[in-house]
Amino acid sequence: MKLFTVGPVACYPEVLEAMGQQMVSHRSEEYKKLHVETVEMLQRFLETENEVFLFSSTGSGFMEASVRNCVNKKMLCCICGSFGKRYAEVATANGKQVETLEVPLGEPILPDLLDQKLSETPDVEAVSITHNETSVGLVNPLEDLAEVVKNHGKLLFVDAVSSMGGTEIKADKWGLDVCFSSSQKCFGVPPGLGMGSVSEEALKKSESAENKGWYFDFKVWKKHQQKKGTPMTSVIPQIAGLNTILKVIESKGGKEWFFELYAERNRSIREGVQKLGLTMFSKSGYESPTVNCVNAPAGIDGLKVYESMRGEGFELAEGYGTVKNVTFRIGNMGYIESADIDSMLEALGKVLVKLGWKR
Amino acid sequence: MKLFTVGPVACYPEVLEAMGQQMVSHRSEEYKKLHVETVEMLQRFLETENEVFLFSSTGSGFMEASVRNCVNKKMLCCICGSFGKRYAEVATANGKQVETLEVPLGEPILPDLLDQKLSETPDVEAVSITHNETSVGLVNPLEDLAEVVKNHGKLLFVDAVSSMGGTEIKADKWGLDVCFSSSQKCFGVPPGLGMGSVSEEALKKSESAENKGWYFDFKVWKKHQQKKGTPMTSVIPQIAGLNTILKVIESKGGKEWFFELYAERNRSIREGVQKLGLTMFSKSGYESPTVNCVNAPAGIDGLKVYESMRGEGFELAEGYGTVKNVTFRIGNMGYIESADIDSMLEALGKVLVKLGWKR
Repeated sequence: MKLFTVGPVACYPEVLEAMGQQMVSHRSEEYKKLHVETVEMLQRFLETENEVFLFSSTGSGFMEASVRNCVNKKMLCCICGSFGKRYAEVATANGKQVETLEVPLGEPILPDLLDQKLSETPDVEAVSITHNETSVGLVNPLEDLAEVVKNHGKLLFVDAVSSMGGTEIKADKWGLDVCFSSSQKCFGVPPGLGMGSVSEEALKKSESAENKGWYFDFKVWKKHQQKKGTPMTSVIPQIAGLNTILKVIESKGGKEWFFELYAERNRSIREGVQKLGLTMFSKSGYESPTVNCVNAPAGIDGLKVYESMRGEGFELAEGYGTVKNVTFRIGNMGYIESADIDSMLEALGKVLVKLGWKR
Repeated sequence: MKLFTVGPVACYPEVLEAMGQQMVSHRSEEYKKLHVETVEMLQRFLETENEVFLFSSTGSGFMEASVRNCVNKKMLCCICGSFGKRYAEVATANGKQVETLEVPLGEPILPDLLDQKLSETPDVEAVSITHNETSVGLVNPLEDLAEVVKNHGKLLFVDAVSSMGGTEIKADKWGLDVCFSSSQKCFGVPPGLGMGSVSEEALKKSESAENKGWYFDFKVWKKHQQKKGTPMTSVIPQIAGLNTILKVIESKGGKEWFFELYAERNRSIREGVQKLGLTMFSKSGYESPTVNCVNAPAGIDGLKVYESMRGEGFELAEGYGTVKNVTFRIGNMGYIESADIDSMLEALGKVLVKLGWKR
């Protein structure tokens, strides 16, 4: 099965080899070297001097951590799809009051709108932004939004789950307080590892947080980071996988090379899909660089497209949430060869015809 | 390096091969099959009809989950070493009141003592017991302790991190409400997966729990279990690894075969160490079946023994907590061949002499 998923995505052979390596103790010198090296490569990638933690959880664990460590009472969640909603759900489940800024599906969060909302809700302590909303294949203008949040003096949490590694993020320059991702997205490593940067200000806020638990306590993480490790056992295989792909990226010319590779694939897929006569779900100019969310043709169920493509040997991604049946998604992360893009597009054309599509 | 660690432990080649497999989507039919099969094998292994969840975290995540889902105000933590202390620390960090029953290091928690303590603290809602205390190599008499807890009508949380898979646990017969472990211990799978059983009563308690968060919410987990998956992305490689070792165990004659294999290794190591003239830290009759905690000879630092053994190509485990310098530990979990036990013991004898030991 060829994967054009949105995570877990197909992994490079080098990464899979790292995943299958024999274990070492997570308190050994061998692990400490791996840990420090991986953290430092990720800091360079995100252009940050903030702490970078390697969580023994998925990115959603980091989401929970941001809320527990850095919000006493109230936060603002920007919602342009299912994962923005997830943030609000997580905050509520953790006993926080939540203000929301929600836009129609397919539309981005724009700076003016956020500025206005923050003027109306001066009592929120933090703002969450989904950088790339995987559910609808839309990227928000993070740099500009961050500027607004910082002008209002709020902490900024960035769900970069499907953007980190696939498009530029400058954590320090843009003022991101918590910025996290998952291993199984742009870096093309199997799932199980959440990684993210945490600013000094976020760490300071964590000091006075009550009832924040142990597993995701930033202060406990910082203490163990100083000992070159993690509070609980480290997810060694996935960390070795991340280490491997970061080295591959550095050896090929750095992150710009990787971004361009993804952009090229993304373009090929989008243009191919449009050539078939299909349209994108998200507003033009805000299409995600890592996943194309495609409108299913009128009268054809998006889920049927997904299922039929499996029959052709291609695993795309189903539509998500309320647009489950009217869209399907095509990811461009991980290990994808350009010949596979051509054959996937060819199969898609055939499948649509079989499903009764008449252009 | 030959591993006689206490986790991560060395993995069987079959498990490492499963770890290196190409990814599938965690919502695909392929994953659902793997998920259900693994859950069912683990249910059979634990002799339980309770839900068995496959957490995208280590066992410590399950520890946090038990506290957040099933304790409103107060619990009792039984402490006979560092991981019993960890339970109390986690409960406190989650805003719960904690009663403790603590015994001197090297001593087990005994049923009469627990019975007395529970008579004195009738207001606790739950009791935590560390089945096998990894830090001092001691196993508590879980079946008898469980009977006491059930007689008092309390919920029972069992930290079975270094016992599940290595010695018998009958979750339903013994009345265990939450019983969890980590992939990197007895089952010899790399770290990153926490797995455990959750009783109906524990799930019921979770319904009314406040501020329990999202990541570890048992009710959210149950909802996704019914859809043959997990709330966040599943730790697919480790689940595939666990699936593989459980099948190996079933094919070799079931869990009794695996327990006997571990018991045999454990005995060989203990007898070999005693033959060298060393003694065990834990009280006779309560030595752990998965890790031997050895007293360092007078005047020799346990850490030095650990370091010198690394020089000989053997990774043991350092002493832990307050006995860090006066003990060292030898695990017998995971992929260990019997010839390696002989050469490890031989190296240990040499190392002790080099460190100046005179019997």
